[in-house]
Amino acid sequence: MRIGRFHYRGEIFYGIVEGEMVLPVADPFQSLEPVSGRQFALPELDLLAPCLPTKAVCVGLNYRDHALELGMALPEEPVLFLKPSTAVIGPGEPIVYPAMSRQVDYEAELAVVIKKRARQVREEEAGDHILGYTCANDVTARDLQKKDGQWTRAKSFDSFLPLGPYIVTGLNPGDREVSLYLNGERKQHSSTAQLIFPVYRLVSFISRIMTLLPGDVILTGTPAGVGPVQPGDHVEVVVSGIGRLANPVVLQGGTVPIFA
Amino acid sequence: MRIGRFHYRGEIFYGIVEGEMVLPVADPFQSLEPVSGRQFALPELDLLAPCLPTKAVCVGLNYRDHALELGMALPEEPVLFLKPSTAVIGPGEPIVYPAMSRQVDYEAELAVVIKKRARQVREEEAGDHILGYTCANDVTARDLQKKDGQWTRAKSFDSFLPLGPYIVTGLNPGDREVSLYLNGERKQHSSTAQLIFPVYRLVSFISRIMTLLPGDVILTGTPAGVGPVQPGDHVEVVVSGIGRLANPVVLQGGTVPIFA
Repeated sequence: MRIGRFHYRGEIFYGIVEGEMVLPVADPFQSLEPVSGRQFALPELDLLAPCLPTKAVCVGLNYRDHALELGMALPEEPVLFLKPSTAVIGPGEPIVYPAMSRQVDYEAELAVVIKKRARQVREEEAGDHILGYTCANDVTARDLQKKDGQWTRAKSFDSFLPLGPYIVTGLNPGDREVSLYLNGERKQHSSTAQLIFPVYRLVSFISRIMTLLPGDVILTGTPAGVGPVQPGDHVEVVVSGIGRLANPVVLQGGTVPIFA
Repeated sequence: MRIGRFHYRGEIFYGIVEGEMVLPVADPFQSLEPVSGRQFALPELDLLAPCLPTKAVCVGLNYRDHALELGMALPEEPVLFLKPSTAVIGPGEPIVYPAMSRQVDYEAELAVVIKKRARQVREEEAGDHILGYTCANDVTARDLQKKDGQWTRAKSFDSFLPLGPYIVTGLNPGDREVSLYLNGERKQHSSTAQLIFPVYRLVSFISRIMTLLPGDVILTGTPAGVGPVQPGDHVEVVVSGIGRLANPVVLQGGTVPIFA
């Protein structure tokens, strides 16, 4: 099942997407039962980010092939960082290249969308707390990441967390193909079978640190092949069984370009 | 003026504290005009965390005396990290010592409470975006901070962000005395005159990265003298002109103590 978040004539709502029809639901974190009697044609609606996370919890180096490629030891435990809710944008919205950075990179990722409050959850129970999966781009100011040591500034700029297009339920998160296309050319391609810490283990681990709330997202890490974007570029994250999250890159308004 | 957040017979509300009286306000981020006709006696009310931040943006090493004591170069720019909303607790609520850590430290800080949306704000305009100031404890699992390199896990445990007791308006943030008392003994003591990046500069800097929302907090860094707590301890952050934020430390329920 595909769940989207939509805007139509001043109203914002969640809906189940069936072919070209959208059936509104009151609260997909409570029930996927459509609100009776209403339906919309998909092309009439504006598509928004599929959820409003209170936080995005992200995992560093988590692809076995990427770690080996870098010659790095596999981590013993997940290394976490947070992206703020203010970084979220939806499909088609622009990634804004900030004046403060000279190297902004894409990072294609599978994102987990939390269904219900998760605190001290065992790995076997993790699935009960997951609504579904979506595509994410963990946009990163690579120069600032290196300069600061801490990754927060580099990853927290407004627009640095594209999410979408839909939340897809009932998927096996362990065999998703994750790809990134830059201006139509494939730059990243791997499978979540390569995850060092698979999805249910991540949910359990994170829930032993901080309570996860409905709509919160977990970004599961990015595979090999990260690289820079420029204003004017078109970036797409594709996850098999989920869809295509496309965003243009634009220069921050009112600023002077600081790269050639 | 002192603004608190209160619970009384199932109702949660903000209020202006005048002596022993509390005058409810509808939304202190919009107006500090009391809702006419209602008042409460302070001792009748439960005191909650004074605001509900969507995010807490925190600054690493930011006290000149502390940096010099450590023999470290003064940073060129603030180093940021985030604490999630789920870490917030109020006055008197317990700091929960997690099973995952063997060294949990206190860190007394002055916290800035944002009044209205701040994006790309100049230093001269920062004051217009601040509602007031409160006390914060940036509780940190020091062992996990060292192990991970990234600070997020160490600082994001549930209960690791005590805030309160009140938001105080009209203060000069540049000459606050910040102290920490552990079981009545003073362990930290400095002045915000020692801040490497003062408050208005921090607001401006952070607002050029991520949009700050009403109720968001900025933690301005901690002075020298950080150290460990143990279950059973009583920790107090005192900021001059604001008040005293007191919290007990308890062991995480259902777990075996892992320290002697």
